[in-house]
Amino acid sequence: MKAIGFKQSLPISDPNSFIEFEIEKPKPKGHDLLVKIAAISVNPVDFKIRQSAAKNTVLDTPKIIGWDAVGTVEEVGDKVSKFKVGDQVYYAGDLTRSGSNATYQLVDERITGFKPQKLSLAEAAAIPLTGLTAWETLFDRIRVDPITDQGKTVLIIGGAGGVGSICIQLARKVGNLTVVATASRPESAQWCTALGANHVVDHRSLQEELDKLGHSQVDYILDFVDLKAYWEVAAEIIKPQGHIVSITGSTEPLHLNLLKNKSVTFSYEFMYTRSMYHTDDMDKQHRILNKIGRLLDAGKLKPTLNTTLTGFTVANLKKAHQLQESGKSIGKTVILY
Amino acid sequence: MKAIGFKQSLPISDPNSFIEFEIEKPKPKGHDLLVKIAAISVNPVDFKIRQSAAKNTVLDTPKIIGWDAVGTVEEVGDKVSKFKVGDQVYYAGDLTRSGSNATYQLVDERITGFKPQKLSLAEAAAIPLTGLTAWETLFDRIRVDPITDQGKTVLIIGGAGGVGSICIQLARKVGNLTVVATASRPESAQWCTALGANHVVDHRSLQEELDKLGHSQVDYILDFVDLKAYWEVAAEIIKPQGHIVSITGSTEPLHLNLLKNKSVTFSYEFMYTRSMYHTDDMDKQHRILNKIGRLLDAGKLKPTLNTTLTGFTVANLKKAHQLQESGKSIGKTVILY
Repeated sequence: MKAIGFKQSLPISDPNSFIEFEIEKPKPKGHDLLVKIAAISVNPVDFKIRQSAAKNTVLDTPKIIGWDAVGTVEEVGDKVSKFKVGDQVYYAGDLTRSGSNATYQLVDERITGFKPQKLSLAEAAAIPLTGLTAWETLFDRIRVDPITDQGKTVLIIGGAGGVGSICIQLARKVGNLTVVATASRPESAQWCTALGANHVVDHRSLQEELDKLGHSQVDYILDFVDLKAYWEVAAEIIKPQGHIVSITGSTEPLHLNLLKNKSVTFSYEFMYTRSMYHTDDMDKQHRILNKIGRLLDAGKLKPTLNTTLTGFTVANLKKAHQLQESGKSIGKTVILY
Repeated sequence: MKAIGFKQSLPISDPNSFIEFEIEKPKPKGHDLLVKIAAISVNPVDFKIRQSAAKNTVLDTPKIIGWDAVGTVEEVGDKVSKFKVGDQVYYAGDLTRSGSNATYQLVDERITGFKPQKLSLAEAAAIPLTGLTAWETLFDRIRVDPITDQGKTVLIIGGAGGVGSICIQLARKVGNLTVVATASRPESAQWCTALGANHVVDHRSLQEELDKLGHSQVDYILDFVDLKAYWEVAAEIIKPQGHIVSITGSTEPLHLNLLKNKSVTFSYEFMYTRSMYHTDDMDKQHRILNKIGRLLDAGKLKPTLNTTLTGFTVANLKKAHQLQESGKSIGKTVILY
């Protein structure tokens, strides 16, 4: 089968940053599905791993990355009970296994959902990683309760990005929260408003803009951009007993004590935790993907797809990575096979 | 009225580390109760504030510290609705106001509970600060659910201290958790076992002892001793999606990224947050104290009092501070007026 990968971590402009090659089609065992891929999407984790996985070394066999995918089940392992051959599925996969930048991929059924029926293949491919991240952030880390937490305020840092785009919607439509999203360009601000953000603010003057809105302090802060850059302002604008969640992290140590007097809670959200550690509740991702799919099919959530590149080629994968690396992409970028 | 306080932050052995003096009895307004104090207890926060509040300065009027108290309502403010004159009450008070090391004290009714009827005055004085801290840690920060979380494992670092002593009991009896407590001396280990800890381990060989118990990783870690000292081992032994709570803090920045791959949550618990920021749910402390009182009256929780000093004197207050400063006190120390 055809696959695209890399043997070295190279700048995306390098001719060998991605290479096309042939490998054997894998065989599913146990809980695995063999999926024939129809479309994939690209996320920041893709270029971060491309840039770091083969630094100062040359791999013997190319590394296949990419995680979001939609496709059709072609074969199933002996323990599979949730899906059958012919089912259309979507998933974000497992960071520790071979990726979706290939014609076929193995994926554990417990982290796979049924493709939302009313979405196009490209629209569906855009959802899994960001949908799981946003859902887990709101409902597994913060444990937002749509009844008791109704009207509480969440600040989403990076509203127009992939995770922000689905999170704005889940926070409003499922969480019943008041959503303030950051976006600094007119086109990204407009995107956030169209997805349902109650307010859009510029991240460069966060405190002042929140003061103007009458939300000087917020109940929840979600960092989808850069934890270290926002740490001090987050500690200022979080309410007493509030909750901060980050998906980014900081290579430098942080002054955790800024959270102390207010009894603030901080969580990391990493959607690969469940599959990486094979947690007891790993199959919750199956249920989350199905739940999000039903909300999309019912029109309660809007697709977050913004850019579609047609053809599973090295050139298109490079384009998608370049767009992610720019930090300016709005919504999601998909490659349709 | 008689009060004991200090004008300078001095070593406890200094003759002027505490001084006795007379001030006017205060008048209650609004939600305040005027309480005639019958007993107080001493916590680590007492000596920390004594050591820092008047460093390199001499105050004009002595500072009155001390927060835990039990006593009788002698007068009420015009907005008081929960208590009447003559009620016996207990409370940990408000860090921003004058303390309990006095004959009378003002306290907001919303952070005050009814004294548990079956406990002695000394036993009751030992409860509020540690009880509120332990309750908020388990049920407001972690939000332990006694049904769905039944049998999950909590590691309590500092099991024999004031907070540990009540937390071991709440975690087992109310939270339905399996409790592993740290204690390094035979007498402190025995104390933890008597309070219901399922296992007692030595903090100096935490990982090895947990391995031996078959609990190499735990769901929750509660730090009641020193956040920085336990940060790295806590990141190792916490389960994926686990929750760490600290009441201590760290003056140095910490590597938060150690929590990232496991999507771990970290909370500070500071029982003075609610009164310090006058949070909307400030009166939850009234309800928590009453709930803990009912559990004590029903015999479901045991008193944590260990040392009683009789007489509200400078000498006894110095003794109580010395014991706290040693770091070796077991359970609680109370001064009976």
